[in-house]
Amino acid sequence: MARTAGSHSDITGPRVRAAALKLFARQGFAAVSMREIAREVGVQAGALYNYTADKQSLLFDLMQSHLDSLLAAFEDDPTAAPEARLRQFVQFHIRFHHDRPDAVFIAYMELRNLTPENFARIEALRRRYEDRLETILKAGVAEGSFAVTDTKIATMAVIAMLTGVSTWFRSAGRLSLDEVQEQYWQMVRKAVSAPAIHHVS
Amino acid sequence: MARTAGSHSDITGPRVRAAALKLFARQGFAAVSMREIAREVGVQAGALYNYTADKQSLLFDLMQSHLDSLLAAFEDDPTAAPEARLRQFVQFHIRFHHDRPDAVFIAYMELRNLTPENFARIEALRRRYEDRLETILKAGVAEGSFAVTDTKIATMAVIAMLTGVSTWFRSAGRLSLDEVQEQYWQMVRKAVSAPAIHHVS
Repeated sequence: MARTAGSHSDITGPRVRAAALKLFARQGFAAVSMREIAREVGVQAGALYNYTADKQSLLFDLMQSHLDSLLAAFEDDPTAAPEARLRQFVQFHIRFHHDRPDAVFIAYMELRNLTPENFARIEALRRRYEDRLETILKAGVAEGSFAVTDTKIATMAVIAMLTGVSTWFRSAGRLSLDEVQEQYWQMVRKAVSAPAIHHVS
Repeated sequence: MARTAGSHSDITGPRVRAAALKLFARQGFAAVSMREIAREVGVQAGALYNYTADKQSLLFDLMQSHLDSLLAAFEDDPTAAPEARLRQFVQFHIRFHHDRPDAVFIAYMELRNLTPENFARIEALRRRYEDRLETILKAGVAEGSFAVTDTKIATMAVIAMLTGVSTWFRSAGRLSLDEVQEQYWQMVRKAVSAPAIHHVS
């Protein structure tokens, strides 16, 4: 991340990132030029290099700050009951991703455009987040309230299910985000709980 | 879909589609030119237009054929028990998507690059597939073996969970695809079943 220190980059940096986020999400990383990003920001193409080394650095920066915010925002209370912690995770994950559709889209879609070194750093951050959920699942398995064959697989399944909400949920739809969160929580809770007793008629 | 009838397009059409699929998946639709696709196929750029009207038609064609194959390949037996039908769906969905990572990636990622008319046609096909799963969930709710608040929400949740496998599963990993399928089936079955009885210690 080559970024010039000082007030200019403090002001322009966020604008460069916002412009890059918007353009990458709309057109895809490979189709966007530094010139277009500069035009969106309202600076000369050359001036952009005062704030970022290149397009790769911008992409990495966007993904890293997305995952840093995700990790910083999720508050887990390890002294609470695993079921309460899991419920908190479900609600947090849906809300956080719903509020950042462009960042979510890029974080998943543009992994192919990271250099191998940057990819490894992003994957490490993502794994740290997955570990937060897996820790909760393991605590529930340990105390007997959850029944999960493989906590890693369950982690991947739950995260994919919850992230999916951002691909179809529309605020103007027939259900509120709170209602959707509640229904997802019921499904997740059941998915990781001890097998259901069927009432066979 | 402007495609010239006859033996030439019968042979070259699939090669054009395979080349487009590969390049779109690697670089993104917007970053790939018809010239590059022609080079990959080994024909002149102009010759490509004998097989496809433009890049948009190629993208639509790839997505449409992916969803057509999906719809054709899934066999549901409406006389079977809902739980057996759901299990069949889970196994089918994971396997089908695992075998076509490029097509899956494009089908989700390049929706933004479809014209509104083509987007509507692709969404209609996708909805037909979702309806196949929702029909199974509704049958289970009707007979009392499933307990789902909203079958549409559960449909979206299950599909996102299962499709996620293709983003992380590696054949060389510690679990086989069969083992992964079985664990996902257990989670899906529980997620849509009547609430679990907890053994509180």
